[in-house]
Amino acid sequence: MTAKNLQELLDKTGNIVELLRNSQLGAYIYPVVPAEFSNWRREVIAWRETAVLFDQSHHMVNLFISGPDALKLISDTGINSVANFEVNMAKQFVPVSPEGYVIGDGILFREAEEEFTFVGRAPVANYLLWKGSKGYNVDIRLDQRSPMRPYGKAVKRELWRFQIQGPNAWAILEKLHGGKLEQLKFFRMSWMNIAGERVRTLRHGMAGMPGLEIWGPYETYEKVREAILEAGREFGLEPCGSRAYSSNTLESGWIPSPLPAVYTSPGLREYREWLPVDGYEATNALAGSFVSDNIEDYYLNPWELGYGNFIKFDHDFVGADALREMAENKDRFRRKVTLAWNAEDLGKILASLADPEGPGYQFFDVPNANYGSSNYDKVIDANGKVVGLSLFTGYSANERCGLSLATVDPDVPIGAEVKVVWGEPDGGTKKLTVQPHEQIEVRAIVSPAPYAKVVREQYQPGWRSTGF
Amino acid sequence: MTAKNLQELLDKTGNIVELLRNSQLGAYIYPVVPAEFSNWRREVIAWRETAVLFDQSHHMVNLFISGPDALKLISDTGINSVANFEVNMAKQFVPVSPEGYVIGDGILFREAEEEFTFVGRAPVANYLLWKGSKGYNVDIRLDQRSPMRPYGKAVKRELWRFQIQGPNAWAILEKLHGGKLEQLKFFRMSWMNIAGERVRTLRHGMAGMPGLEIWGPYETYEKVREAILEAGREFGLEPCGSRAYSSNTLESGWIPSPLPAVYTSPGLREYREWLPVDGYEATNALAGSFVSDNIEDYYLNPWELGYGNFIKFDHDFVGADALREMAENKDRFRRKVTLAWNAEDLGKILASLADPEGPGYQFFDVPNANYGSSNYDKVIDANGKVVGLSLFTGYSANERCGLSLATVDPDVPIGAEVKVVWGEPDGGTKKLTVQPHEQIEVRAIVSPAPYAKVVREQYQPGWRSTGF
Repeated sequence: MTAKNLQELLDKTGNIVELLRNSQLGAYIYPVVPAEFSNWRREVIAWRETAVLFDQSHHMVNLFISGPDALKLISDTGINSVANFEVNMAKQFVPVSPEGYVIGDGILFREAEEEFTFVGRAPVANYLLWKGSKGYNVDIRLDQRSPMRPYGKAVKRELWRFQIQGPNAWAILEKLHGGKLEQLKFFRMSWMNIAGERVRTLRHGMAGMPGLEIWGPYETYEKVREAILEAGREFGLEPCGSRAYSSNTLESGWIPSPLPAVYTSPGLREYREWLPVDGYEATNALAGSFVSDNIEDYYLNPWELGYGNFIKFDHDFVGADALREMAENKDRFRRKVTLAWNAEDLGKILASLADPEGPGYQFFDVPNANYGSSNYDKVIDANGKVVGLSLFTGYSANERCGLSLATVDPDVPIGAEVKVVWGEPDGGTKKLTVQPHEQIEVRAIVSPAPYAKVVREQYQPGWRSTGF
Repeated sequence: MTAKNLQELLDKTGNIVELLRNSQLGAYIYPVVPAEFSNWRREVIAWRETAVLFDQSHHMVNLFISGPDALKLISDTGINSVANFEVNMAKQFVPVSPEGYVIGDGILFREAEEEFTFVGRAPVANYLLWKGSKGYNVDIRLDQRSPMRPYGKAVKRELWRFQIQGPNAWAILEKLHGGKLEQLKFFRMSWMNIAGERVRTLRHGMAGMPGLEIWGPYETYEKVREAILEAGREFGLEPCGSRAYSSNTLESGWIPSPLPAVYTSPGLREYREWLPVDGYEATNALAGSFVSDNIEDYYLNPWELGYGNFIKFDHDFVGADALREMAENKDRFRRKVTLAWNAEDLGKILASLADPEGPGYQFFDVPNANYGSSNYDKVIDANGKVVGLSLFTGYSANERCGLSLATVDPDVPIGAEVKVVWGEPDGGTKKLTVQPHEQIEVRAIVSPAPYAKVVREQYQPGWRSTGF
């Protein structure tokens, strides 16, 4: 009998880990936006040195939520407080399972009293869609992300979405607007003018430089894009292609792809019966050297992803009780860091392509080296003990260094040298992105997230670092 | 004054080499076809071990030539004989300048007595369009290649074009056809049935295994493609993405991208006045370590590209006199070879990304490492003397080796070790694909084209090899 929903799939397969680790979905694709406009190194360097135009119109879902109970739905499902969630504010919205594990995250915009838009990956949107159908007086509409391989067919979204970032971003924005633009607080929304269009803005920024996220109806996509590129030319603005795009998070420290913690909670059984067998949760490809038969070992709590300070017990929400209990141990949880990969070891991986002998290593594509929808590599200490998980891996053309975003044990200090195990055990899984390979241990320096270069600590009492 | 055509551009700029070497066109893109379906290594391995579906629907122009003078136009412009050019045959068509240098090449199909289709890059199609307008009773229609960056817009061609290649290709083709298919001679055309459609075929093949190129109206693109993938599943057929696609020529030995020899010939002045300032000839990006102020140093004659045996003096054609004269010295011309890159040196280039010090090397993307429309790298001997040009560079996942297609001096033997200079002098040009870099000399073994692995010769009297 063919499974008709995620729950039936779980009942049938027994081990969902095996299924996801051998998913036939292929790579996680950033669709439609051309791979490169100039070249990916130049585009990456632009966001640090001049300015960059990110096109976020295609790779995320939009979920439009409106109605009298919209705020209640949000309050009931998110760890975030809505106490001061005013109109024209946005939040990084995080719902968790009843057991307190992260389902996903994304940006939630409050556009009017009863109007919200969630922008992000599918898991949170799916969860809000389902929750919203359970007695809330809301209207919810999903605008799916663009197809992974449009193959010459026309693509249509409801909105275009750009970011203008980098040291010259504000000068470009004011030139486009034709006058001074108030630098609101981070994540506050406003409006500006571009090419005769009035477009919505969200105050954003990278590395302390003010920038804006802007959006508007898809019909004005080209017109607005061209006006931005034209205005930005004198400021060295580069359009950023889909190849360079995802590597920006390696520098800014957001982990895009935790596995949604929805597979085992008894309280989410009805949700799993609602979720399709061909959706994100049932088909996303789980990649990397960390392997456990227990899917719950892949779940992450808000503290482990750096969202501990989003948790506010000023409202009742799914998972609140669990988080209240967990909070007592919060200092024992892993914390988010960036791992700076050892140049020699990464060089070995990159060079292994040219070695005709042996199976070689799992291909490390640059600048995005991830080969699944959710990526879990083991981080080990000098004794081989697992002290963390490396969750998003790539290469920064600004740092000229391999970087990965990880969550590591609390006793692993900044400056410590750990090892990331790159590649899957036993020659690798059957994922479409995997060819037979050997694993390799890559030395890496534990560094802050957002990334800043640190010197390797020469000695850390009590901590088992390598190389001494 | 703005130049209105290629000739005016040449008159204005003086040095066309500088212009093309600093072209702002960007990478030569294989558009519309998704980059990867599974992963590019697996897709490459499939054409050698099972079977592969190449999608050639988008990256080449179609030029439809018909009318009473169609054959005459072809005979007047190509080095190829038309004496035995029967209906349902195809030829690798090569026109040359009045001085005997190659303008380009591509496949010319004779579909009916007075009906021909040329398929290939723009330079030959442009040249035939222009020549055809000079008093021939022909009808010519150009179907442009698909846009480089469709960015979500619908793409429409007149035809889809596929190849099914690899050891299992013929079994898949007969399964699709529903019966035995005659294995015609190479480059003979016929018909077959796919999914209820009658489609045209060209007998093709890779590495001695029979395959077919097939084509039909764009309206049946998806239907035919799906039928092929469905039939091929049991035979391990892999759809090949645009990332893997172009690396197949590294193994099969066709050089796709000679610079069209149209910039200086007095006899082509009128053609240059006809060519636009924004076309292939005026904007194509010239890349690599070989630099000469004289654009004619980039021209290649038919022998240098392996087309010497196409030249037939049984007809009069543009360049015939020049080629007749050149033919007397044909043994002194360079000849086409494959260069097998040294693993250690290529490894150094690949690993250089991870080195935070120094400018690093020009990025070697895999499997297609070319960073221009036309690529000219110096091939040098142990004394640093230029003994050839490396013209198309990449990586073969079958050979697990860097390969480039080159033309080298006649005294450079198979098995000799030469060096390819990778990267541009003086830190590199202003091409969009180039970041500041250093050059590096890469050892390579001169090997046959199509590629076959050879052992490095230990000693070649009279030949200045390295490393002894």
